[in-house]
Amino acid sequence: MAVHVSDGAAVTVGLLGCGTVGQAVVRSIIEGGATIERASGHRLQLGPILVRDASKPRPGVDPALITTDPQRVLADPSVSIVVEVMGGLDPTLDHLRQALAAGKSVVTANKQLLARHGPELLEAAEQAGAELRFEASACAAIPVIKVLRESLLAAEITAVTGIVNGTTNFILTEMSRQGLAYGDALGRAQALGYAEADPTEDVNGADAAAKMAILSSIAFHSRVLIDDVPYEGIDNLHAEDIEHAHSLGFVVKLLGVARLLNGAVSVRVYPALVPHGHRLAAIGGPDNAVLLESRTTREIMLVGPGAGGDETASAVVADILSILGTHQGSFLHNAMADSGRTIARPGSVASAFYLRMSVADRPGVLARVASIFGDESLSIRSVVQSGSGDEASLVLILHAGAEERMDAAVARVRALDDVRGEPVLLRVLGDGEGGDR
Amino acid sequence: MAVHVSDGAAVTVGLLGCGTVGQAVVRSIIEGGATIERASGHRLQLGPILVRDASKPRPGVDPALITTDPQRVLADPSVSIVVEVMGGLDPTLDHLRQALAAGKSVVTANKQLLARHGPELLEAAEQAGAELRFEASACAAIPVIKVLRESLLAAEITAVTGIVNGTTNFILTEMSRQGLAYGDALGRAQALGYAEADPTEDVNGADAAAKMAILSSIAFHSRVLIDDVPYEGIDNLHAEDIEHAHSLGFVVKLLGVARLLNGAVSVRVYPALVPHGHRLAAIGGPDNAVLLESRTTREIMLVGPGAGGDETASAVVADILSILGTHQGSFLHNAMADSGRTIARPGSVASAFYLRMSVADRPGVLARVASIFGDESLSIRSVVQSGSGDEASLVLILHAGAEERMDAAVARVRALDDVRGEPVLLRVLGDGEGGDR
Repeated sequence: MAVHVSDGAAVTVGLLGCGTVGQAVVRSIIEGGATIERASGHRLQLGPILVRDASKPRPGVDPALITTDPQRVLADPSVSIVVEVMGGLDPTLDHLRQALAAGKSVVTANKQLLARHGPELLEAAEQAGAELRFEASACAAIPVIKVLRESLLAAEITAVTGIVNGTTNFILTEMSRQGLAYGDALGRAQALGYAEADPTEDVNGADAAAKMAILSSIAFHSRVLIDDVPYEGIDNLHAEDIEHAHSLGFVVKLLGVARLLNGAVSVRVYPALVPHGHRLAAIGGPDNAVLLESRTTREIMLVGPGAGGDETASAVVADILSILGTHQGSFLHNAMADSGRTIARPGSVASAFYLRMSVADRPGVLARVASIFGDESLSIRSVVQSGSGDEASLVLILHAGAEERMDAAVARVRALDDVRGEPVLLRVLGDGEGGDR
Repeated sequence: MAVHVSDGAAVTVGLLGCGTVGQAVVRSIIEGGATIERASGHRLQLGPILVRDASKPRPGVDPALITTDPQRVLADPSVSIVVEVMGGLDPTLDHLRQALAAGKSVVTANKQLLARHGPELLEAAEQAGAELRFEASACAAIPVIKVLRESLLAAEITAVTGIVNGTTNFILTEMSRQGLAYGDALGRAQALGYAEADPTEDVNGADAAAKMAILSSIAFHSRVLIDDVPYEGIDNLHAEDIEHAHSLGFVVKLLGVARLLNGAVSVRVYPALVPHGHRLAAIGGPDNAVLLESRTTREIMLVGPGAGGDETASAVVADILSILGTHQGSFLHNAMADSGRTIARPGSVASAFYLRMSVADRPGVLARVASIFGDESLSIRSVVQSGSGDEASLVLILHAGAEERMDAAVARVRALDDVRGEPVLLRVLGDGEGGDR
């Protein structure tokens, strides 16, 4: 490892590129610095930042760090980690070669570069005793590379199947759920920021092919370049086939499929019919999902946003920390001892509730029950009354409220003449319980 | 880190316990040794194995390693890593204290022990310069602890919501899909090996509470013990409420819910109504799933088997390798250069297909098409003909066959007089494509 620092010493991170992802990395390092230092024992410090246009405003960034000269980043001996978020192949490849040759570790989100020159760059890193990390290059914040490399290192992966392009998954979801034609769904994706103005690389499958080349290289400990991955996109897909597929019990997804076949590697990208009951069929909108199968464990699936500036930056920062080699035992202990967090009093927690009770089917029961909840400022979302006579039951779904109020209301309801036996109380997930963001 | 070994030196791993998980760990170390060494640069060697009954047959294990004396493991200076899979609190806690005090690193799958004594053991590890790892203690092979600790280290987690007990998820799935009563569903789970003969800890929520204590400690960098986690189980759940929930658009799941509320930690376990469209609603059978929310990234979900000997052993082995500190750059490069895997020829790959073509609605069309697929040994799974006259279309789903045969068949079909224009060909996931296991 090229970066040897004692705990607490600052590590200087230089950036190549400062677009959406680069700016999110800068924000993480500036605003998240205290958290990072507490959690990892390392202080990150911004070094020079290569940009195309130095005159653009970059709030919060020291203008002295901004440069249009790559050598200010690459030849600066104080920079020990270079983050590459400028994209493209040329001159990016040469920049990374130079950084690695100088013993700097590199974190990159550049999937097209890695899918073409990954083996060469890894070899350069090894020769220089530096690290090359690229979690952000495939599926952004979903840590699939770390899981493959570390958690499943000895598991002998046999297949990696994924929805690894969020743009196409959004378009297919819209075509399928809203019955839109391809062009209309693409327009909607562009309007919502899920597709670029030029969506070619996404919709023709090239983006997914690059990601699958990277993932299958790691999964199978093998050398897979983008030229080894035949790909088809969704740009020729007809709404008619999505409808036929639906009526036959399938949804259409753009899949990356990597498998070992008699020891050989097969990696492809194509639109495919996925049975309704399959895990991947449920992955809708712009999400990504990767299914990992191995000899020793049953399927593991990772799901999450496959793109986004903050998500990609989060993967970049995780790679930086992983290069620095978090001392985990001590992190965990210190954090447990020092965070000073208290345990919330259960009664103060807000939850939404389901409540069922047996009631006498008499006029005014619901009014009496409803007025009790009103008194306790608990709001009713829906009520279903079923049965009749002494066998009637009343089912209420309540909006979120403090649990101690709910307990108080239930005690009062139970005391009503119309209510028989013990009411059944269950919580409801996902309706405004609150919580910190 | 207590374990300093040069690449290639053998690391001796002692075991406390040799039940289902222990035996799977032994198998991994013996049978997977070559893979582990190639991938990590470390050779693992079995040390003494503590068992209760030395007379039981343990195929493949050198009988000289079997012992009923814990000191043969704990006091052996050649043992650098102790794997604890014996379970229980007493004498297990004392054994781990002794191992850590001697500077041995410990890997454990013991959730009840960690949820009660985790902070003390982490402190002991830190003082001795040893490591304590416990990925297998929560959700077996799903690497949620690694993802929380490393990938999301700087992400400021705000909520962890999970289905972390496979037994109860299986029971609830059966109650919901088959309409079984609780007792019948439990019996089925026991018959299939998804529930213990004494299922108390699973069904009353205690198992889930221990896991949530561990996960929330790491997520919130905080000290959460099992006594801080109020829990309810599913043992009092009525089939009637599952039906009401269903008709209101919900499924019932046993959830672990950990949140930050005004900076305080709230961790609970309870059965809850989950809306049908929610990600966690789709997690059925004995699977586990954990949803992670943070300030910087949208939801990430990890899904997989939460139990099983091989799965738990896989997490134990990953922890061992993580203690040894895989040098990842070199691993990845070497693997890429050395695995010697070839790329499979696309035409030789087997896929199932969807085929749509416009046909003239004339007698005998289907027979002519079907005979061509028969000639190419491709078997038809379903056929739908729609429309009529010159507007008719024929949709076929074919069982898996080599793609070159499919291409040949489609070329012949296209040449038929009855077939108009270009047929549409899409692959179908999950129907016997084959692949290595």
